[in-house]
Amino acid sequence: MPRLKAAQRREQLIEVATKLFAKTGYEATTTAAIAQAAGVTEPILYRHFRSKQELFVAIVREVSKYTLEQWQALIANVTDPAERLRIISSAMPDHMKRLSDYYHVLHGALATSRDKKVLAVMREHYDQIQTFFNRIVTEGQKSGNFRKELHPEAAAWQFIFSGIGYAMISLNLGPTDREIIKEVIDAMVRGIKG
Amino acid sequence: MPRLKAAQRREQLIEVATKLFAKTGYEATTTAAIAQAAGVTEPILYRHFRSKQELFVAIVREVSKYTLEQWQALIANVTDPAERLRIISSAMPDHMKRLSDYYHVLHGALATSRDKKVLAVMREHYDQIQTFFNRIVTEGQKSGNFRKELHPEAAAWQFIFSGIGYAMISLNLGPTDREIIKEVIDAMVRGIKG
Repeated sequence: MPRLKAAQRREQLIEVATKLFAKTGYEATTTAAIAQAAGVTEPILYRHFRSKQELFVAIVREVSKYTLEQWQALIANVTDPAERLRIISSAMPDHMKRLSDYYHVLHGALATSRDKKVLAVMREHYDQIQTFFNRIVTEGQKSGNFRKELHPEAAAWQFIFSGIGYAMISLNLGPTDREIIKEVIDAMVRGIKG
Repeated sequence: MPRLKAAQRREQLIEVATKLFAKTGYEATTTAAIAQAAGVTEPILYRHFRSKQELFVAIVREVSKYTLEQWQALIANVTDPAERLRIISSAMPDHMKRLSDYYHVLHGALATSRDKKVLAVMREHYDQIQTFFNRIVTEGQKSGNFRKELHPEAAAWQFIFSGIGYAMISLNLGPTDREIIKEVIDAMVRGIKG
């Protein structure tokens, strides 16, 4: 295998680790197994990530960054705040499917890990998502689209809770009917309207 | 340790297994470890449960049964369907806390297990919860409280998605503010009203 540049190697290790974590679980996967699957020695892996935790942190940050960039792009030309929420939510099934290995890793660790660093980066992830939704809701309140007495965090958390629950069901037990998804989104948006 | 009767032994094994699954994960826990923690031999354990899967199935069914009985009792004297949804949802934080070991096991397995029997009983669990909410929503549509064009399954799934997401965040990253919970519930109920 030809040698990769540092940034490419880092990316490759993140991808390989995500696949292994998704398949055998975060706790059960060793850095030795990740190094082997990536075709490098453990010392090489440690040059990029000092520990399994650091790899996990990098995976979560990559998901956060990618997700927010995607959402930002989706709503760049949309001004109506209700429409913004609808567009992002409607894109969730494909988004989750595309990142299914990543979401298995994130949700698996959230549900089972007691590692403080693991949980801290998950908190960081949801805080970023919360801030994103919070901003849309706040703008919607200013423009008179959404109820003014609502705390924007509450609306933001509702979208996060629903998103996590949707992913837990649909990624693990089978897809949810598109019409049901549409109606759930519609009900969520109605619930925060004036 | 004095000998327990069959039903008590079964209950004890379910409790011990739940604690171990919650602590070390379903996949990593062996029947040998469960038998040891329960103070019995493996053959005794196998007299009650033929496999780890069967123990898991028993745990999930116990959670389903307990949850539905609790909810039924909570709304027995309440006729307004919106109020029924509010009461059940408002009881979730305490319900989840009381059953936190059980929910760690259920959500951990849902997020990480690929075992068909494990996933089948999780599907059975959510189908029962879905039927429960579906009935309340259908009654609310008949009485004119909820929008008639809504599929009751959609409203039911919205409550399930939110409940799972809420538990994933609150049980693993720390409690959610009570005021936020109240507003999320309020928004969900508004979203399905006429």
